[in-house]
Amino acid sequence: MDINKYTPKFRIKNKDLLHLADLSPEEIFELLYTARSMKKKYKVGEITNMLRGKTVGLLFGNVSTRTRVSFELGIRQLGGDYIFLPKNETQLSRGESVKDTAAMLGRYGLSALVLRGFNDEELEEFAACADIPVVNGISDTSHPLQILSDLFTIWEKKGKLENLKLAYIGDGNNIANSLIIGCSKCDMNIAIASPSGYSPARSIVERGMQFGDILITDSVAEAVKDADIVYTDVFISMSDEDDEKKKAKLEKYRVTKGVMALAKEDALFMHCMPVRRGEEVSAEVADGPQSIMYDQAENRLHLNKAVLTLLTMGDK
Amino acid sequence: MDINKYTPKFRIKNKDLLHLADLSPEEIFELLYTARSMKKKYKVGEITNMLRGKTVGLLFGNVSTRTRVSFELGIRQLGGDYIFLPKNETQLSRGESVKDTAAMLGRYGLSALVLRGFNDEELEEFAACADIPVVNGISDTSHPLQILSDLFTIWEKKGKLENLKLAYIGDGNNIANSLIIGCSKCDMNIAIASPSGYSPARSIVERGMQFGDILITDSVAEAVKDADIVYTDVFISMSDEDDEKKKAKLEKYRVTKGVMALAKEDALFMHCMPVRRGEEVSAEVADGPQSIMYDQAENRLHLNKAVLTLLTMGDK
Amino acid sequence: MDINKYTPKFRIKNKDLLHLADLSPEEIFELLYTARSMKKKYKVGEITNMLRGKTVGLLFGNVSTRTRVSFELGIRQLGGDYIFLPKNETQLSRGESVKDTAAMLGRYGLSALVLRGFNDEELEEFAACADIPVVNGISDTSHPLQILSDLFTIWEKKGKLENLKLAYIGDGNNIANSLIIGCSKCDMNIAIASPSGYSPARSIVERGMQFGDILITDSVAEAVKDADIVYTDVFISMSDEDDEKKKAKLEKYRVTKGVMALAKEDALFMHCMPVRRGEEVSAEVADGPQSIMYDQAENRLHLNKAVLTLLTMGDK
Repeated sequence: MDINKYTPKFRIKNKDLLHLADLSPEEIFELLYTARSMKKKYKVGEITNMLRGKTVGLLFGNVSTRTRVSFELGIRQLGGDYIFLPKNETQLSRGESVKDTAAMLGRYGLSALVLRGFNDEELEEFAACADIPVVNGISDTSHPLQILSDLFTIWEKKGKLENLKLAYIGDGNNIANSLIIGCSKCDMNIAIASPSGYSPARSIVERGMQFGDILITDSVAEAVKDADIVYTDVFISMSDEDDEKKKAKLEKYRVTKGVMALAKEDALFMHCMPVRRGEEVSAEVADGPQSIMYDQAENRLHLNKAVLTLLTMGDK
Repeated sequence: MDINKYTPKFRIKNKDLLHLADLSPEEIFELLYTARSMKKKYKVGEITNMLRGKTVGLLFGNVSTRTRVSFELGIRQLGGDYIFLPKNETQLSRGESVKDTAAMLGRYGLSALVLRGFNDEELEEFAACADIPVVNGISDTSHPLQILSDLFTIWEKKGKLENLKLAYIGDGNNIANSLIIGCSKCDMNIAIASPSGYSPARSIVERGMQFGDILITDSVAEAVKDADIVYTDVFISMSDEDDEKKKAKLEKYRVTKGVMALAKEDALFMHCMPVRRGEEVSAEVADGPQSIMYDQAENRLHLNKAVLTLLTMGDK
Repeated sequence: MDINKYTPKFRIKNKDLLHLADLSPEEIFELLYTARSMKKKYKVGEITNMLRGKTVGLLFGNVSTRTRVSFELGIRQLGGDYIFLPKNETQLSRGESVKDTAAMLGRYGLSALVLRGFNDEELEEFAACADIPVVNGISDTSHPLQILSDLFTIWEKKGKLENLKLAYIGDGNNIANSLIIGCSKCDMNIAIASPSGYSPARSIVERGMQFGDILITDSVAEAVKDADIVYTDVFISMSDEDDEKKKAKLEKYRVTKGVMALAKEDALFMHCMPVRRGEEVSAEVADGPQSIMYDQAENRLHLNKAVLTLLTMGDK
């Protein structure tokens, strides 16, 4: 389906946003159109008050710059308030159950809850026990807000989504997982090049294949051929910082000018940041003219505002 | 004295709230009536602006979910602002004196200061040195806000306080201490069942006895006989997490269905949370129809708003 | 130049505030006049909305009471908002570059950035990469906000700055550095008494000497002779807490009543706090009638408001 032929209603039926797999293509389009509208309003200084009188809880279990700052500022830009709760400063760190925590946060008058650094079971339990919308700010298996922001950025830059080819090079992590689901739902073609042992989970790939073509390969050249977008992420995620074997295996998957030359001439380079120049991407590419990583980061602000606006419109 | 026959003035003379022992029964009633009024207004969406233009300092020395969230949201609901200061991120963690810290916080324009995780001497020094109201958000010896919230919840559920019997089962900790003072001041009967070595401090019991009858026993059956409320707390508090001997001694003080059956038929189960199901209370009781622990937690929001409203009305 | 003969325009050309060396005497005067105006308005309850609709980022890498609280409350008093980011909870702690962090914070809509606990190179990189004003909240080599607040306090108490003599006794640290530059730019005379090995850096002293007379000595008596102000700071800064040798060497540099008696009769005692009574200053002096350290601390509130107001008036 072509996003440009879709007529947005600026509503979604979903009450939580845990994984992209839970969203229909139409719901993804609703979020992207709303983000575009948010950004347009912000740029001309139009006031957007969708969260007036509402307070959003940010319950974070690991370090964060983009997610935290883009939510804190985005919520303010919508006229709302937030409370920031580091997980390790709450009773969750002393064994209080997700069920009790979720029940309480709803009763205190929060309007939505953004969770970062919880596993999928915990996310689902939060969503089941809290009578307010629950948003996954990143989990081990997925990062829906980042990929929605990326789809919005691609749409901005390329004017469309359908039939574009995105090549993801590197570790088959939560970013790769969410790209597979997100891109395939938007009728994009996706190719993943990872060394053996670091491919995305088969279950994710199979789910993505229900929507479109997915190429899983260990060849960078094969993946980036004819690609409109080359995407990578850090080799070493927060959970496995000392994994030298992994680093060695991924060494050949660095995105360099040579790799970019194998893609389409007007191909864009994307990265969800933070970047380690010289590891997963050369400085030349990260800071070069094809790179749109700062735009991706910037768009998270508007995408987050779209998510909170649409999720908090009705009752859960 | 019967709270239902008391006519509230929605004022108190106190300038700090360190311990329940410092409050007269009338002052406790003022706080409960104000909390009830706050809750009523909140439920119908009436705007309450008692903290408009005011900023409350939250200086916390240990982990917290309920106290933190209920203050942060409560202050917003009153139209005010807060600053959250983790003790270990201030110069207090590097030896700066309470006196200097207190003097400064007042001079910067805070309207009140909530302290969590300070000892009683520090609390008193803060109250003496700060020219703004100081509130004890929990200390080793007492937890006045929790017990005020509990008294409010009991009043809501039972329609009265006078002559009700509350049985507290378990560790004679800060919650037990504050229950003894709070309940006896409200003409409730209180019974504490603890294993030897874990009874509340004699000085606290003697103070409570000035106001009403207090039974200290090691027999759960004796304590819960004819009880209107059965109350417990975690066996192991924040300060002694590895105390296996204590756990073993308290094992027999778990509140189970069998224990509840020894109380009145319409007895309520209370817990200040966090709960460890299977330790101090069975899951069956904690999540059963007699349990009102989520209501207790919810009421902290409105009780905190009452405390801040009454304390900041005049000048210290 | 006499500050009392200066006519303020309530504007400065600077776009960042990294070090006092970057400010002209006129710019210092602009900041002090603005701080005085801020304080006057605050005391009579006049509303000051210079940050209405703006959000300031506070990115802090070490513990803080005065800087944090005075910014958080000052920003609110100006009608603005802030986000507080502990450095170790951001991706900076996992190696993200200053360049990428700075680029993003600007794109998300922050209006200014206060940095604490970064080194001078990082400060300069932030200033170069962020398209918003960057303020040094303390670095290893300087503490401009503290010394501006001190100059404001001296002006308040003594009615002038020109030709006053300030004696700094103790460790030649960032406070000493900034006093040398700040006092000499305001035509004050400054004398530093430190034990050998703990004098201020020669480069700083030479820079200060371009503006006025500076005496560097190891004799407390020589430094405080005819002094209008005696100033000290903790002997042991955050970075070298276990340095017993340093403590021993500085032992004789404690400011006692005896030391104060060597200065002018109406000399004032100053300290940027936190104080360690009995180490760098006796309790008698710190809490005595000559001490104005609480006023210094209080004035940081108004000085910070002046800095943010003037820096965010134009575009960077």
